[in-house]
Amino acid sequence: MITFRTGLPALALSTVLLLAGFRVKPQTVLPQPAADTAPGSIFPKGERAPAANFTGTVYLYPLVKDDADFNCVSGSVTFAPGARSNWHTHAAGQILLITAGVGYYQEAGQPVRLLRKGEVIKARPGVKHWHGASPKQAMTHIALNVNTEKGVVTWLQPVTDQEYDSYE
Amino acid sequence: MITFRTGLPALALSTVLLLAGFRVKPQTVLPQPAADTAPGSIFPKGERAPAANFTGTVYLYPLVKDDADFNCVSGSVTFAPGARSNWHTHAAGQILLITAGVGYYQEAGQPVRLLRKGEVIKARPGVKHWHGASPKQAMTHIALNVNTEKGVVTWLQPVTDQEYDSYE
Repeated sequence: MITFRTGLPALALSTVLLLAGFRVKPQTVLPQPAADTAPGSIFPKGERAPAANFTGTVYLYPLVKDDADFNCVSGSVTFAPGARSNWHTHAAGQILLITAGVGYYQEAGQPVRLLRKGEVIKARPGVKHWHGASPKQAMTHIALNVNTEKGVVTWLQPVTDQEYDSYE
Repeated sequence: MITFRTGLPALALSTVLLLAGFRVKPQTVLPQPAADTAPGSIFPKGERAPAANFTGTVYLYPLVKDDADFNCVSGSVTFAPGARSNWHTHAAGQILLITAGVGYYQEAGQPVRLLRKGEVIKARPGVKHWHGASPKQAMTHIALNVNTEKGVVTWLQPVTDQEYDSYE
């Protein structure tokens, strides 16, 4: 289980939603759309996600920092075409709200399924899964981890090209 | 405390995010953009919210139904210009992700503040507050209630015109 609660360097803040739950207590969190916001997008795409946990180009923009009132961490994740997370599990599960583009989602032992803007996914606690963009279109989702006192994420192996290309 | 867990009639489902937490256990939740989706919007605007808890025209579109794995309920709420919620509190707090338009947010004893697309608000547990559109522009936000085992919402009195118009 990889769970940092305090002391993250500034650069690592952008990886919060998939990597870690850190606890602060702001009154409000006010991200402002930045220069890298694509036309029509809601949130900035943020900073590059750590290569160790992803294949391809992935950006993370933190939305909600964890704290003891909410036990919740959230961020907007943008996957370039072909990019995807490693396989991973969430001790308390994860909710994905697809906000743009077309993506893939797979739970271990299940076929790859297509994700489109407007869909909502619940990855149940402990269910091994991955998510990413489709081969030719980017995908952005809000990733939402609740009940973070139970843990946030455990990273596993990369998704192979064979697994990624198994969508039918 | 108004909290329904089971037995809601179908019509009431659209009010879930602000009214109630009901517990089901779907594998996945897959809302599809419907005909009433405005160009560029992520989610359908849903159905009319109950007049008893709002002033003006408000639509609710459920995104996440509560269940025992996540203790989380979420939906997209669209306020027509001038529309707003009643004053209310959340026993476990509420997070708002502003996805479109321009709105207002006020906590009791604080000035009204302006909300814009891309902002994130944390209404702390028990803090009396309201939210809505600005007078001339609609506002849509994702409303997110976590730790719903502690309760979801307690509705209070309507926001008066004097309170609503106090934004400077």
